[in-house]
Amino acid sequence: MAHIINDNYEERFMQRAIELSEIAYKSGKGLPIGCVIVKEGEIVGEGHNEIFCRTNPTSHGEMVAIENACKNIGDLQLTECEMYTTLEPCPMCLGAIYWAKLKVVYFANTNKDAAEVGFDDSFIFNEFAKAPEKRLIAMYSKNNPAAMKVLKDWQTENLPASQPWTNSPEQ
Amino acid sequence: MAHIINDNYEERFMQRAIELSEIAYKSGKGLPIGCVIVKEGEIVGEGHNEIFCRTNPTSHGEMVAIENACKNIGDLQLTECEMYTTLEPCPMCLGAIYWAKLKVVYFANTNKDAAEVGFDDSFIFNEFAKAPEKRLIAMYSKNNPAAMKVLKDWQTENLPASQPWTNSPEQ
Repeated sequence: MAHIINDNYEERFMQRAIELSEIAYKSGKGLPIGCVIVKEGEIVGEGHNEIFCRTNPTSHGEMVAIENACKNIGDLQLTECEMYTTLEPCPMCLGAIYWAKLKVVYFANTNKDAAEVGFDDSFIFNEFAKAPEKRLIAMYSKNNPAAMKVLKDWQTENLPASQPWTNSPEQ
Repeated sequence: MAHIINDNYEERFMQRAIELSEIAYKSGKGLPIGCVIVKEGEIVGEGHNEIFCRTNPTSHGEMVAIENACKNIGDLQLTECEMYTTLEPCPMCLGAIYWAKLKVVYFANTNKDAAEVGFDDSFIFNEFAKAPEKRLIAMYSKNNPAAMKVLKDWQTENLPASQPWTNSPEQ
């Protein structure tokens, strides 16, 4: 089972993620979250929060590490990879983890720990269950035949038998 | 109310998002999804799916448009901005929308429409309600005092009264 891994093995990678979390905020580049991605015992990608230096609120540690690992491996999929992150992934990073098809995720601090120092993402989780137009940021569906036509045209012209960008519960 | 907007006003920006969705796949750069971000009637950011050209499974149209708008405006927050996207945002992009603090989102195709052409993200929404270790991609909490120390050190050294990177339900 994936979670029965030698503690020293895991510890080594989490330690690097923690180092990155410290670098993130001491450098002024971002908030104190670090992340490492490992394949077959080797680090293939790492990152830390860079929201300040990139002026991008989506540059969380996990997002930067996925970007880095995919670039290094040259693959959109990280199916054989483990993620070590210093903080339980937020809803955005959770979604990213599925699109990247990681194998397993280990996190140190929990969302509850984070809320105590001012990072509270629980309200975002609560938003997901609401109808789009009822959310705190309202989201309105605008049916548009031209938009549907593009999807259909793409499907007709491009759909290969195997779609690396889609996901499925059978990982 | 935010959703009572002149139809021609909305239509113009959605039309541009649709153009971008077509460019995305015809250029081979990504999947057929386009996105435009508007502030006070002007486009301040746009993007389309770039997962292929960036080799990054997180480069969805909305993510690229947020990145572009924040860069153009020079701000981590898009509080006065509207998003027009050709497809209902996936869980990752939904999270990103909250971190970027957009004002309102308009989408053309729904998640259900997308599932019909092979983009099905419903299973990710279902994952969120599960305990981390029970998810299809298992996520294990590894309590680590060193990771917590970094968060606490950051809080002590850096926490300003106003935190632009946190969010709150009172937008």
